[in-house]
Amino acid sequence: MEQKFRKWKQQSLSKLDQSKKGSVDKDIKHVVSLINSCQEYFTTSSCSGRIILIDGDSQSSDVQKQNCVWLFVSHEKCSSDDLMSGLTGSSGDAVLKFEPFVLHVQCRRLEDAQLLHSVAVSSGFRNSGITVGKTGKTMAAVRSTHGLEVPLSREGKLLVELEYIRFLTQIANQKMEQNLRRTQRFYENLQSALSAEKLQKLQTPEPPGSHERHDPPHVLETEKEERKKSDVYKRRRKREQHQTDCCHGDGDGRITELDDCLDLFL
Amino acid sequence: MEQKFRKWKQQSLSKLDQSKKGSVDKDIKHVVSLINSCQEYFTTSSCSGRIILIDGDSQSSDVQKQNCVWLFVSHEKCSSDDLMSGLTGSSGDAVLKFEPFVLHVQCRRLEDAQLLHSVAVSSGFRNSGITVGKTGKTMAAVRSTHGLEVPLSREGKLLVELEYIRFLTQIANQKMEQNLRRTQRFYENLQSALSAEKLQKLQTPEPPGSHERHDPPHVLETEKEERKKSDVYKRRRKREQHQTDCCHGDGDGRITELDDCLDLFL
Repeated sequence: MEQKFRKWKQQSLSKLDQSKKGSVDKDIKHVVSLINSCQEYFTTSSCSGRIILIDGDSQSSDVQKQNCVWLFVSHEKCSSDDLMSGLTGSSGDAVLKFEPFVLHVQCRRLEDAQLLHSVAVSSGFRNSGITVGKTGKTMAAVRSTHGLEVPLSREGKLLVELEYIRFLTQIANQKMEQNLRRTQRFYENLQSALSAEKLQKLQTPEPPGSHERHDPPHVLETEKEERKKSDVYKRRRKREQHQTDCCHGDGDGRITELDDCLDLFL
Repeated sequence: MEQKFRKWKQQSLSKLDQSKKGSVDKDIKHVVSLINSCQEYFTTSSCSGRIILIDGDSQSSDVQKQNCVWLFVSHEKCSSDDLMSGLTGSSGDAVLKFEPFVLHVQCRRLEDAQLLHSVAVSSGFRNSGITVGKTGKTMAAVRSTHGLEVPLSREGKLLVELEYIRFLTQIANQKMEQNLRRTQRFYENLQSALSAEKLQKLQTPEPPGSHERHDPPHVLETEKEERKKSDVYKRRRKREQHQTDCCHGDGDGRITELDDCLDLFL
């Protein structure tokens, strides 16, 4: 399996970037590099976060819904002029979206995916998840609940005022800032977790066949700090859950609304 | 582990529903019942999908962001009058959201989570994921990329016209319909998958220690049909991916925009 993984990684990193853009977004180059420098991981796709204007076909049947036109895309903050200018090209149903940082990472073993997943969730990316394929292909997806999706025009006719577009621009830009802060937090937490993991492996060699994680006899001070912070986060989050408006369950069904609130605890 | 899981399940299902609502939403009672009737699973939280109006505190510091007021919540389609009436109570920054079906299921083993996850993804819930805790607690989250998040007022002042609210109501209601269709598809696919799984276990008893899945010698006709549909879906999705605007990667980084388009293939 280890050999298979190394081969997958080699193949994946040597092939051409198949995305339209063809390169890693500049704001997350360090994150992608950090992950690809570890033998346990390689990234398969990523986006630093973006503000987009899409024009859908309002006259369409379902089949034609595929024909979306991209009126505007930015991986940085934008101005209301940018959006207004993009909107002039709309002849269908234009929608403004903010799409946060997303990252897909293929992992050597389930335990490696668990580490990445745990760092992602404690950094605020609470829609993250692991996928395990039948062939043993293990993926970790880092996803946020942060979003914005605002329909703006119908059949090319703008349904809102310029003042509203200005307001939306502010909100989209704020989300872009929060997204970058959260991504940086993920990067720092991942660095700490990987350092602690390496130290642990050096100090307590893993017996063959065992995949259990143990606390190392000595943990770096910074890592202790990180864990403390993470514990505070978990306690606070637990407390908050009782205030959420879930439908059925243990109070964890809906956490979207706490997404911004929790920023302050980290 | 099996015994521990049975105990967890017993405890979880016997305790009081800790959500605000205190009961399972009517549109997904059959889904929750189906899952809880299987020895491999139990649900820990769920929501059938909802249209909500939240009022945030515009004057607030980050800390006070927690003080959200719920102006309106509906698990069914709503009218623009409902929303307008909710908005009259806004004194801060009101936001309209559509939040799709969400389900958290604790699974006995990783293989059980894989089955559920695979059904969820092939039914269109592409933000689904598995979480594996250090204690072996394995959770599957069923999540959709379907959403709507529209800021509507600032400091209690409505920034859009009634016509726009009517338009938004239509869109939110359409999303509610699509969400219900997708949830039903998940239910039907899960039924088929669980039947096939049972049949498989009867026909090819699993050797101790092996968790591999094998194709049963005979597969139910309906299951074959399901698989065929699922294969078509995968092929089509693969084809679509090349049309998406990803930032870096294998073309799978951003699939949100295809969410509606893919509805028609199932």
